[in-house]
Amino acid sequence: MVHLSVYAPENLPEIERGDSIAERILTSLADFPLQTGDIIAISHKVVSKAESRMFDLREITPSPKAVQYGVLLGKEPALIQLILNESEEVLWAERANGPMICRHHRGFVCANAAVDCSNTKPGHAVTLPLDPDLSAAQIRGEIERRLNIRIGTIICDTHGRSFRNGACGIAVGASGIVALKSYIGKKDRVGRVMESSVECYADELAAAATLVMGQGDEGRPIAIIRGFQGTIGEQSAKEIIRQQETDIFLQALQKTRK
Amino acid sequence: MVHLSVYAPENLPEIERGDSIAERILTSLADFPLQTGDIIAISHKVVSKAESRMFDLREITPSPKAVQYGVLLGKEPALIQLILNESEEVLWAERANGPMICRHHRGFVCANAAVDCSNTKPGHAVTLPLDPDLSAAQIRGEIERRLNIRIGTIICDTHGRSFRNGACGIAVGASGIVALKSYIGKKDRVGRVMESSVECYADELAAAATLVMGQGDEGRPIAIIRGFQGTIGEQSAKEIIRQQETDIFLQALQKTRK
Repeated sequence: MVHLSVYAPENLPEIERGDSIAERILTSLADFPLQTGDIIAISHKVVSKAESRMFDLREITPSPKAVQYGVLLGKEPALIQLILNESEEVLWAERANGPMICRHHRGFVCANAAVDCSNTKPGHAVTLPLDPDLSAAQIRGEIERRLNIRIGTIICDTHGRSFRNGACGIAVGASGIVALKSYIGKKDRVGRVMESSVECYADELAAAATLVMGQGDEGRPIAIIRGFQGTIGEQSAKEIIRQQETDIFLQALQKTRK
Repeated sequence: MVHLSVYAPENLPEIERGDSIAERILTSLADFPLQTGDIIAISHKVVSKAESRMFDLREITPSPKAVQYGVLLGKEPALIQLILNESEEVLWAERANGPMICRHHRGFVCANAAVDCSNTKPGHAVTLPLDPDLSAAQIRGEIERRLNIRIGTIICDTHGRSFRNGACGIAVGASGIVALKSYIGKKDRVGRVMESSVECYADELAAAATLVMGQGDEGRPIAIIRGFQGTIGEQSAKEIIRQQETDIFLQALQKTRK
Protein backbone atom coordinates (compact mmCIF):
# COMPACT_ATOMS: atom_id res chain seq x y z
CA MET A 1 0.00 0.00 0.00
CA VAL A 2 1.50 3.32 -1.08
CA HIS A 3 0.70 5.98 1.51
CA LEU A 4 0.94 9.74 1.23
CA SER A 5 0.15 12.03 4.17
CA VAL A 6 -0.74 15.70 4.19
CA TYR A 7 -0.57 17.51 7.54
CA ALA A 8 -1.56 21.06 8.41
CA PRO A 9 -0.57 22.50 11.79
CA GLU A 10 -3.20 24.68 13.42
CA ASN A 11 -0.96 26.78 15.65
CA LEU A 12 1.01 28.84 13.14
CA PRO A 13 0.99 32.42 14.45
CA GLU A 14 -0.24 35.29 12.28
CA ILE A 15 2.69 36.24 10.01
CA GLU A 16 3.78 39.89 10.05
CA ARG A 17 5.99 41.97 7.80
CA GLY A 18 9.64 41.02 8.20
CA ASP A 19 8.97 37.66 9.87
CA SER A 20 11.12 34.66 8.98
CA ILE A 21 8.70 32.13 7.54
CA ALA A 22 11.20 29.32 8.05
CA GLU A 23 11.51 30.15 11.73
CA ARG A 24 7.76 30.38 12.20
CA ILE A 25 7.33 27.01 10.51
CA LEU A 26 10.00 25.38 12.67
CA THR A 27 8.53 26.82 15.87
CA SER A 28 5.09 25.66 14.85
CA LEU A 29 6.43 22.17 14.09
CA ALA A 30 8.45 21.77 17.29
CA ASP A 31 6.57 18.56 18.16
CA PHE A 32 6.52 17.31 14.56
CA PRO A 33 10.09 16.63 13.36
CA LEU A 34 10.51 17.28 9.65
CA GLN A 35 12.23 14.54 7.62
CA THR A 36 14.26 14.35 4.45
CA GLY A 37 11.81 13.98 1.59
CA ASP A 38 9.08 16.10 3.17
CA ILE A 39 7.56 18.83 1.02
CA ILE A 40 6.36 21.98 2.74
CA ALA A 41 3.58 23.84 0.98
CA ILE A 42 3.09 27.45 2.03
CA SER A 43 0.23 29.77 1.14
CA HIS A 44 1.65 32.65 -0.86
CA LYS A 45 -0.27 35.04 1.32
CA VAL A 46 1.88 34.56 4.41
CA VAL A 47 5.03 34.83 2.28
CA SER A 48 3.71 38.03 0.72
CA LYS A 49 2.90 39.46 4.13
CA ALA A 50 6.39 38.69 5.43
CA GLU A 51 7.92 40.21 2.30
CA SER A 52 5.96 43.48 2.50
CA ARG A 53 3.72 42.70 -0.43
CA MET A 54 0.58 43.91 1.33
CA PHE A 55 -0.59 47.28 0.05
CA ASP A 56 -2.75 49.99 1.60
CA LEU A 57 -5.14 50.94 -1.21
CA ARG A 58 -5.38 54.53 0.12
CA GLU A 59 -1.72 55.00 -0.79
CA ILE A 60 -2.18 54.01 -4.43
CA THR A 61 -3.03 56.69 -6.99
CA PRO A 62 -5.01 55.17 -9.85
CA SER A 63 -4.07 56.04 -13.42
CA PRO A 64 -6.76 57.17 -15.90
CA LYS A 65 -6.71 53.61 -17.30
CA ALA A 66 -7.44 52.19 -13.83
CA VAL A 67 -10.30 54.65 -13.34
CA GLN A 68 -11.70 53.61 -16.72
CA TYR A 69 -11.56 49.91 -15.77
CA GLY A 70 -13.05 50.81 -12.41
CA VAL A 71 -16.18 52.22 -14.06
CA LEU A 72 -16.42 49.24 -16.45
CA LEU A 73 -15.96 46.57 -13.80
CA GLY A 74 -17.46 48.27 -10.75
CA LYS A 75 -14.20 47.84 -8.84
CA GLU A 76 -12.12 50.24 -6.76
CA PRO A 77 -9.68 52.08 -9.11
CA ALA A 78 -6.79 51.79 -6.60
CA LEU A 79 -7.25 48.00 -6.54
CA ILE A 80 -7.26 47.94 -10.34
CA GLN A 81 -4.06 50.00 -10.37
CA LEU A 82 -2.42 47.39 -8.16
CA ILE A 83 -3.61 44.67 -10.55
CA LEU A 84 -2.20 46.62 -13.51
CA ASN A 85 1.10 47.08 -11.67
CA GLU A 86 1.39 43.30 -11.38
CA SER A 87 0.41 42.59 -14.99
CA GLU A 88 2.26 42.20 -18.24
CA GLU A 89 -1.03 42.49 -20.11
CA VAL A 90 -4.77 42.44 -19.53
CA LEU A 91 -6.28 39.60 -21.55
CA TRP A 92 -9.94 40.02 -20.72
CA ALA A 93 -11.92 42.50 -18.61
CA GLU A 94 -15.44 43.10 -19.82
CA ARG A 95 -18.03 42.03 -17.30
CA ALA A 96 -19.28 44.26 -14.45
CA ASN A 97 -18.20 42.70 -11.14
CA GLY A 98 -16.24 40.17 -13.19
CA PRO A 99 -12.54 39.43 -12.96
CA MET A 100 -9.72 40.93 -14.99
CA ILE A 101 -7.91 38.02 -16.65
CA CYS A 102 -4.28 39.12 -16.68
CA ARG A 103 -0.89 37.77 -17.58
CA HIS A 104 1.21 38.42 -14.51
CA HIS A 105 4.83 39.60 -14.86
CA ARG A 106 5.91 36.09 -13.89
CA GLY A 107 3.80 34.47 -16.60
CA PHE A 108 0.77 33.25 -14.64
CA VAL A 109 -2.49 33.82 -16.48
CA CYS A 110 -5.08 34.27 -13.78
CA ALA A 111 -7.85 36.44 -12.39
CA ASN A 112 -6.80 39.89 -11.15
CA ALA A 113 -3.08 39.10 -11.53
CA ALA A 114 -3.38 37.12 -8.28
CA VAL A 115 -4.12 40.29 -6.28
CA ASP A 116 -6.34 39.30 -3.39
CA CYS A 117 -8.19 41.09 -0.60
CA SER A 118 -9.27 38.14 1.56
CA ASN A 119 -7.51 37.57 4.87
CA THR A 120 -5.85 40.99 4.70
CA LYS A 121 -6.32 44.13 6.78
CA PRO A 122 -9.39 46.21 5.74
CA GLY A 123 -8.58 48.48 2.80
CA HIS A 124 -5.51 46.42 1.93
CA ALA A 125 -4.68 43.91 -0.80
CA VAL A 126 -1.96 41.31 -1.18
CA THR A 127 0.04 40.55 -4.33
CA LEU A 128 2.23 37.55 -5.10
CA PRO A 129 5.77 37.62 -3.71
CA LEU A 130 8.14 39.40 -6.13
CA ASP A 131 9.89 36.11 -6.96
CA PRO A 132 8.00 33.14 -5.51
CA ASP A 133 10.66 30.65 -6.68
CA LEU A 134 13.29 32.62 -4.78
CA SER A 135 11.07 32.74 -1.69
CA ALA A 136 10.64 28.96 -1.92
CA ALA A 137 14.41 28.51 -2.26
CA GLN A 138 15.16 30.76 0.70
CA ILE A 139 12.67 29.07 3.03
CA ARG A 140 13.92 25.66 1.93
CA GLY A 141 17.57 26.67 2.38
CA GLU A 142 17.03 27.96 5.89
CA ILE A 143 15.10 24.88 7.02
CA GLU A 144 17.61 22.50 5.42
CA ARG A 145 20.56 24.24 7.08
CA ARG A 146 18.97 24.33 10.50
CA LEU A 147 17.80 20.71 10.49
CA ASN A 148 20.43 19.20 8.20
CA ILE A 149 17.79 17.49 6.08
CA ARG A 150 16.74 17.66 2.42
CA ILE A 151 13.22 18.92 1.73
CA GLY A 152 11.18 20.54 -1.04
CA THR A 153 9.10 23.72 -0.78
CA ILE A 154 6.11 24.99 -2.71
CA ILE A 155 4.47 28.41 -2.58
CA CYS A 156 0.75 27.94 -3.28
CA ASP A 157 -2.04 30.04 -4.63
CA THR A 158 -5.49 29.05 -5.88
CA HIS A 159 -6.24 29.93 -9.50
CA GLY A 160 -9.32 29.50 -11.61
CA ARG A 161 -9.07 27.45 -14.77
CA SER A 162 -10.19 27.63 -18.37
CA PHE A 163 -13.25 25.49 -19.17
CA ARG A 164 -13.80 24.39 -15.56
CA ASN A 165 -15.58 25.96 -12.61
CA GLY A 166 -13.84 26.56 -9.31
CA ALA A 167 -10.24 27.22 -8.43
CA CYS A 168 -7.54 24.74 -7.48
CA GLY A 169 -4.34 25.05 -5.50
CA ILE A 170 -1.35 25.49 -7.80
CA ALA A 171 2.34 26.14 -7.30
CA VAL A 172 3.40 29.73 -7.95
CA GLY A 173 6.84 29.01 -6.50
CA ALA A 174 8.83 25.84 -5.86
CA SER A 175 12.28 24.68 -4.89
CA GLY A 176 13.96 21.31 -4.63
CA ILE A 177 11.25 19.23 -6.25
CA VAL A 178 10.42 17.58 -9.57
CA ALA A 179 7.84 20.13 -10.75
CA LEU A 180 7.16 18.37 -14.06
CA LYS A 181 7.47 14.59 -14.18
CA SER A 182 8.02 13.34 -17.70
CA TYR A 183 6.91 9.85 -18.65
CA ILE A 184 8.09 10.32 -22.24
CA GLY A 185 10.18 7.35 -23.31
CA LYS A 186 9.09 5.26 -20.32
CA LYS A 187 7.14 2.07 -20.83
CA ASP A 188 3.55 1.52 -19.81
CA ARG A 189 2.11 -1.75 -18.46
CA VAL A 190 1.93 -3.35 -21.88
CA GLY A 191 5.46 -2.26 -22.84
CA ARG A 192 4.36 0.59 -25.10
CA VAL A 193 6.71 3.58 -25.01
CA MET A 194 4.79 6.66 -23.91
CA GLU A 195 5.03 9.68 -26.18
CA SER A 196 3.52 12.65 -24.50
CA SER A 197 2.73 12.24 -20.81
CA VAL A 198 4.10 14.97 -18.56
CA GLU A 199 2.54 15.29 -15.13
CA CYS A 200 2.69 18.51 -13.15
CA TYR A 201 3.65 17.16 -9.73
CA ALA A 202 4.06 20.70 -8.37
CA ASP A 203 0.45 21.63 -9.02
CA GLU A 204 -0.88 18.27 -7.82
CA LEU A 205 1.11 18.67 -4.60
CA ALA A 206 -0.26 22.19 -4.20
CA ALA A 207 -3.79 20.88 -4.78
CA ALA A 208 -3.33 18.17 -2.15
CA ALA A 209 -1.98 20.76 0.31
CA THR A 210 -4.89 23.12 -0.37
CA LEU A 211 -7.33 20.40 0.69
CA VAL A 212 -6.05 20.67 4.27
CA MET A 213 -5.23 24.39 4.28
CA GLY A 214 -8.68 25.73 3.54
CA GLN A 215 -9.31 29.15 2.07
CA GLY A 216 -11.58 30.79 4.59
CA ASP A 217 -10.88 31.55 8.22
CA GLU A 218 -9.16 28.24 9.01
CA GLY A 219 -5.75 29.82 9.66
CA ARG A 220 -3.75 26.89 8.29
CA PRO A 221 -1.36 28.47 5.78
CA ILE A 222 1.16 25.63 5.64
CA ALA A 223 0.99 21.90 4.93
CA ILE A 224 3.56 19.13 5.10
CA ILE A 225 3.38 16.41 2.47
CA ARG A 226 5.08 13.21 3.59
CA GLY A 227 5.58 9.93 1.75
CA PHE A 228 5.56 11.27 -1.80
CA GLN A 229 7.80 9.11 -3.92
CA GLY A 230 8.81 11.74 -6.47
CA THR A 231 10.24 14.46 -4.25
CA ILE A 232 13.87 15.24 -4.90
CA GLY A 233 14.71 17.45 -7.86
CA GLU A 234 16.01 20.82 -8.89
CA GLN A 235 13.08 22.43 -10.66
CA SER A 236 11.20 25.59 -9.75
CA ALA A 237 7.70 26.75 -10.67
CA LYS A 238 8.99 28.88 -13.56
CA GLU A 239 9.21 25.75 -15.74
CA ILE A 240 5.46 25.25 -15.44
CA ILE A 241 4.62 28.42 -17.40
CA ARG A 242 3.90 27.56 -21.05
CA GLN A 243 6.14 29.29 -23.55
CA GLN A 244 4.16 32.20 -24.99
CA GLU A 245 5.21 31.31 -28.54
CA THR A 246 3.48 27.93 -28.42
CA ASP A 247 0.60 28.70 -26.06
CA ILE A 248 -2.45 28.44 -28.29
CA PHE A 249 -4.79 29.29 -25.41
CA LEU A 250 -2.96 32.52 -24.65
CA GLN A 251 -2.80 33.41 -28.35
CA ALA A 252 -6.54 32.83 -28.72
CA LEU A 253 -7.27 35.21 -25.84
CA GLN A 254 -4.85 37.78 -27.23
CA LYS A 255 -6.52 37.64 -30.64
CA THR A 256 -9.97 38.03 -29.12
CA ARG A 257 -8.89 41.18 -27.33
CA LYS A 258 -7.76 42.85 -30.54
CA MET B 1 -2.83 19.01 13.28
CA VAL B 2 -5.22 18.32 10.42
CA HIS B 3 -4.26 15.07 8.68
CA LEU B 4 -5.29 13.76 5.29
CA SER B 5 -4.13 10.35 4.01
CA VAL B 6 -4.03 9.02 0.48
CA TYR B 7 -3.56 5.27 0.05
CA ALA B 8 -3.08 3.25 -3.12
CA PRO B 9 -3.28 -0.54 -2.97
CA GLU B 10 -0.77 -2.36 -5.13
CA ASN B 11 -2.62 -5.63 -5.59
CA LEU B 12 -5.59 -4.62 -7.71
CA PRO B 13 -5.91 -7.22 -10.44
CA GLU B 14 -5.98 -6.21 -14.13
CA ILE B 15 -9.58 -5.16 -14.87
CA GLU B 16 -11.32 -6.88 -17.78
CA ARG B 17 -14.47 -6.15 -19.73
CA GLY B 18 -17.55 -6.85 -17.67
CA ASP B 19 -15.76 -6.86 -14.31
CA SER B 20 -17.44 -5.27 -11.29
CA ILE B 21 -15.10 -2.47 -10.25
CA ALA B 22 -16.74 -2.28 -6.81
CA GLU B 23 -16.11 -5.97 -6.22
CA ARG B 24 -12.50 -5.74 -7.37
CA ILE B 25 -11.93 -2.79 -5.07
CA LEU B 26 -13.48 -4.58 -2.09
CA THR B 27 -11.43 -7.73 -2.73
CA SER B 28 -8.27 -5.69 -3.05
CA LEU B 29 -9.08 -3.84 0.20
CA ALA B 30 -9.95 -6.93 2.23
CA ASP B 31 -7.28 -6.04 4.82
CA PHE B 32 -8.06 -2.32 4.71
CA PRO B 33 -11.59 -1.67 5.97
CA LEU B 34 -13.23 1.29 4.28
CA GLN B 35 -14.89 3.85 6.55
CA THR B 36 -17.68 6.37 6.24
CA GLY B 37 -16.18 9.58 4.86
CA ASP B 38 -13.59 7.83 2.70
CA ILE B 39 -13.35 8.95 -0.91
CA ILE B 40 -12.35 6.38 -3.49
CA ALA B 41 -10.63 7.75 -6.59
CA ILE B 42 -10.59 5.45 -9.60
CA SER B 43 -8.62 5.87 -12.82
CA HIS B 44 -11.11 6.23 -15.66
CA LYS B 45 -9.15 3.67 -17.61
CA VAL B 46 -10.16 0.69 -15.50
CA VAL B 47 -13.77 1.85 -15.53
CA SER B 48 -13.65 2.21 -19.30
CA LYS B 49 -12.16 -1.27 -19.67
CA ALA B 50 -14.87 -2.79 -17.49
CA GLU B 51 -17.54 -0.92 -19.46
CA SER B 52 -16.31 -2.04 -22.92
CA ARG B 53 -14.92 1.35 -23.85
CA MET B 54 -11.70 -0.08 -25.27
CA PHE B 55 -11.66 -0.08 -29.07
CA ASP B 56 -9.72 -2.12 -31.62
CA LEU B 57 -8.52 0.48 -34.12
CA ARG B 58 -8.63 -2.09 -36.95
CA GLU B 59 -12.40 -2.21 -36.57
CA ILE B 60 -12.84 1.53 -37.06
CA THR B 61 -13.37 2.90 -40.58
CA PRO B 62 -12.05 6.46 -40.79
CA SER B 63 -14.15 9.11 -42.50
CA PRO B 64 -12.61 11.41 -45.14
CA LYS B 65 -12.36 14.09 -42.42
CA ALA B 66 -10.37 11.71 -40.20
CA VAL B 67 -8.04 10.84 -43.09
CA GLN B 68 -7.52 14.56 -43.69
CA TYR B 69 -6.65 15.20 -40.03
CA GLY B 70 -4.43 12.12 -40.16
CA VAL B 71 -2.27 13.65 -42.90
CA LEU B 72 -2.15 17.01 -41.14
CA LEU B 73 -1.28 15.66 -37.71
CA GLY B 74 0.68 12.53 -38.64
CA LYS B 75 -1.71 10.35 -36.64
CA GLU B 76 -3.51 7.12 -37.46
CA PRO B 77 -6.86 7.98 -39.14
CA ALA B 78 -8.75 5.29 -37.19
CA LEU B 79 -7.54 6.84 -33.93
CA ILE B 80 -8.66 10.25 -35.16
CA GLN B 81 -12.05 8.82 -36.07
CA LEU B 82 -12.40 7.56 -32.50
CA ILE B 83 -11.48 11.05 -31.22
CA LEU B 84 -14.06 12.61 -33.56
CA ASN B 85 -16.69 10.13 -32.37
CA GLU B 86 -16.12 11.35 -28.80
CA SER B 87 -16.13 15.04 -29.68
CA GLU B 88 -18.75 17.74 -29.89
CA GLU B 89 -16.28 19.94 -31.78
CA VAL B 90 -12.61 20.19 -32.63
CA LEU B 91 -11.24 23.44 -31.22
CA TRP B 92 -7.66 23.28 -32.41
CA ALA B 93 -5.68 20.77 -34.50
CA GLU B 94 -2.86 22.31 -36.48
CA ARG B 95 0.52 21.00 -35.43
CA ALA B 96 2.10 17.80 -36.83
CA ASN B 97 2.35 15.27 -33.99
CA GLY B 98 0.44 17.74 -31.85
CA PRO B 99 -2.82 17.11 -30.03
CA MET B 100 -6.34 17.75 -31.19
CA ILE B 101 -7.95 20.04 -28.63
CA CYS B 102 -11.56 18.91 -28.55
CA ARG B 103 -14.72 19.57 -26.64
CA HIS B 104 -15.93 16.16 -25.56
CA HIS B 105 -19.63 15.26 -25.65
CA ARG B 106 -19.65 15.60 -21.86
CA GLY B 107 -18.16 19.11 -21.99
CA PHE B 108 -14.52 18.45 -21.11
CA VAL B 109 -12.13 20.51 -23.22
CA CYS B 110 -8.97 18.43 -23.47
CA ALA B 111 -6.43 16.86 -25.76
CA ASN B 112 -7.73 14.15 -28.11
CA ALA B 113 -11.15 14.06 -26.43
CA ALA B 114 -9.51 12.03 -23.65
CA VAL B 115 -8.86 9.11 -26.03
CA ASP B 116 -5.73 7.37 -24.81
CA CYS B 117 -3.53 4.54 -26.01
CA SER B 118 -1.30 4.00 -22.98
CA ASN B 119 -1.85 0.93 -20.81
CA THR B 120 -4.13 -0.63 -23.44
CA LYS B 121 -3.69 -3.66 -25.70
CA PRO B 122 -1.55 -2.96 -28.79
CA GLY B 123 -3.64 -1.42 -31.59
CA HIS B 124 -6.34 -0.42 -29.12
CA ALA B 125 -7.42 2.86 -27.57
CA VAL B 126 -9.56 3.71 -24.57
CA THR B 127 -12.21 6.43 -24.35
CA LEU B 128 -13.89 7.90 -21.29
CA PRO B 129 -16.81 5.93 -19.84
CA LEU B 130 -20.08 6.89 -21.52
CA ASP B 131 -21.32 8.61 -18.35
CA PRO B 132 -18.54 8.91 -15.77
CA ASP B 133 -20.87 10.44 -13.16
CA LEU B 134 -23.15 7.42 -13.49
CA SER B 135 -20.18 5.06 -13.20
CA ALA B 136 -19.10 6.86 -10.04
CA ALA B 137 -22.63 6.63 -8.63
CA GLN B 138 -22.91 2.92 -9.42
CA ILE B 139 -19.56 2.01 -7.85
CA ARG B 140 -20.37 4.12 -4.81
CA GLY B 141 -23.83 2.61 -4.48
CA GLU B 142 -22.55 -0.95 -4.60
CA ILE B 143 -19.80 -0.34 -2.04
CA GLU B 144 -22.15 1.56 0.29
CA ARG B 145 -24.77 -1.20 0.17
CA ARG B 146 -22.29 -3.98 0.79
CA LEU B 147 -20.48 -2.28 3.67
CA ASN B 148 -23.32 -0.14 5.02
CA ILE B 149 -21.12 2.96 5.05
CA ARG B 150 -21.26 6.37 3.35
CA ILE B 151 -18.44 7.16 0.92
CA GLY B 152 -17.67 9.37 -2.05
CA THR B 153 -16.30 8.29 -5.44
CA ILE B 154 -14.33 10.09 -8.11
CA ILE B 155 -13.44 8.91 -11.61
CA CYS B 156 -10.06 10.45 -12.52
CA ASP B 157 -8.27 11.36 -15.70
CA THR B 158 -5.23 13.57 -16.25
CA HIS B 159 -5.79 16.60 -18.48
CA GLY B 160 -3.44 19.27 -19.75
CA ARG B 161 -4.21 22.86 -18.89
CA SER B 162 -4.28 26.22 -20.62
CA PHE B 163 -1.22 28.40 -19.89
CA ARG B 164 0.59 25.74 -17.84
CA ASN B 165 2.80 22.82 -18.79
CA GLY B 166 2.05 19.31 -17.67
CA ALA B 167 -1.19 17.52 -16.91
CA CYS B 168 -2.94 17.13 -13.56
CA GLY B 169 -5.38 14.62 -12.21
CA ILE B 170 -8.96 15.91 -12.51
CA ALA B 171 -12.39 14.46 -11.81
CA VAL B 172 -14.30 13.38 -14.92
CA GLY B 173 -16.92 11.69 -12.76
CA ALA B 174 -17.97 12.00 -9.14
CA SER B 175 -20.67 10.92 -6.74
CA GLY B 176 -21.48 11.73 -3.14
CA ILE B 177 -19.02 14.55 -2.64
CA VAL B 178 -18.91 18.34 -2.54
CA ALA B 179 -17.35 18.89 -5.97
CA LEU B 180 -17.37 22.67 -5.73
CA LYS B 181 -16.93 24.26 -2.31
CA SER B 182 -18.24 27.81 -2.23
CA TYR B 183 -16.80 30.28 0.24
CA ILE B 184 -19.06 33.04 -1.04
CA GLY B 185 -20.74 34.80 1.85
CA LYS B 186 -18.43 33.21 4.42
CA LYS B 187 -16.12 35.34 6.52
CA ASP B 188 -12.35 35.34 6.29
CA ARG B 189 -9.96 35.76 9.23
CA VAL B 190 -10.51 39.49 9.44
CA GLY B 191 -14.30 39.20 9.21
CA ARG B 192 -14.52 40.28 5.57
CA VAL B 193 -17.28 38.54 3.61
CA MET B 194 -15.74 36.69 0.65
CA GLU B 195 -17.27 37.47 -2.71
CA SER B 196 -15.95 35.04 -5.24
CA SER B 197 -14.00 32.06 -3.87
CA VAL B 198 -15.17 28.68 -5.13
CA GLU B 199 -12.74 25.78 -4.71
CA CYS B 200 -12.95 22.70 -6.88
CA TYR B 201 -12.57 20.00 -4.24
CA ALA B 202 -13.24 17.27 -6.82
CA ASP B 203 -10.24 18.19 -8.94
CA GLU B 204 -7.99 18.74 -5.92
CA LEU B 205 -8.97 15.32 -4.61
CA ALA B 206 -8.25 13.79 -8.02
CA ALA B 207 -4.86 15.54 -8.10
CA ALA B 208 -3.99 14.20 -4.65
CA ALA B 209 -5.02 10.69 -5.73
CA THR B 210 -2.99 10.92 -8.93
CA LEU B 211 0.16 11.56 -6.86
CA VAL B 212 -0.03 8.00 -5.51
CA MET B 213 -1.52 6.32 -8.58
CA GLY B 214 1.23 7.14 -11.05
CA GLN B 215 0.69 7.19 -14.79
CA GLY B 216 3.26 4.73 -16.07
CA ASP B 217 3.51 1.02 -15.32
CA GLU B 218 2.78 1.33 -11.59
CA GLY B 219 -0.52 -0.54 -11.76
CA ARG B 220 -2.23 1.46 -9.03
CA PRO B 221 -5.52 2.59 -10.57
CA ILE B 222 -7.33 3.36 -7.33
CA ALA B 223 -6.66 5.51 -4.29
CA ILE B 224 -8.46 5.99 -1.00
CA ILE B 225 -8.54 9.47 0.49
CA ARG B 226 -9.16 9.45 4.23
CA GLY B 227 -9.50 12.30 6.67
CA PHE B 228 -10.81 14.92 4.27
CA GLN B 229 -13.11 17.26 6.17
CA GLY B 230 -15.33 18.24 3.27
CA THR B 231 -16.56 14.90 2.01
CA ILE B 232 -20.30 14.46 2.16
CA GLY B 233 -22.37 16.03 -0.58
CA GLU B 234 -24.56 15.32 -3.55
CA GLN B 235 -22.67 16.82 -6.45
CA SER B 236 -21.27 15.10 -9.52
CA ALA B 237 -18.51 16.15 -11.91
CA LYS B 238 -20.99 17.62 -14.40
CA GLU B 239 -21.24 20.78 -12.28
CA ILE B 240 -17.54 21.48 -12.86
CA ILE B 241 -17.96 22.12 -16.59
CA ARG B 242 -18.18 25.84 -17.29
CA GLN B 243 -21.39 26.95 -19.00
CA GLN B 244 -20.56 27.46 -22.68
CA GLU B 245 -22.42 30.77 -22.76
CA THR B 246 -20.09 32.38 -20.22
CA ASP B 247 -16.85 30.53 -20.96
CA ILE B 248 -14.59 33.23 -22.40
CA PHE B 249 -11.72 30.77 -22.89
CA LEU B 250 -13.86 28.43 -24.97
CA GLN B 251 -15.27 31.33 -26.95
CA ALA B 252 -11.78 32.65 -27.68
CA LEU B 253 -10.71 29.25 -29.04
CA GLN B 254 -13.90 28.97 -31.09
CA LYS B 255 -13.32 32.41 -32.61
CA THR B 256 -9.70 31.58 -33.48
CA ARG B 257 -10.84 28.49 -35.36
CA LYS B 258 -13.19 30.44 -37.60
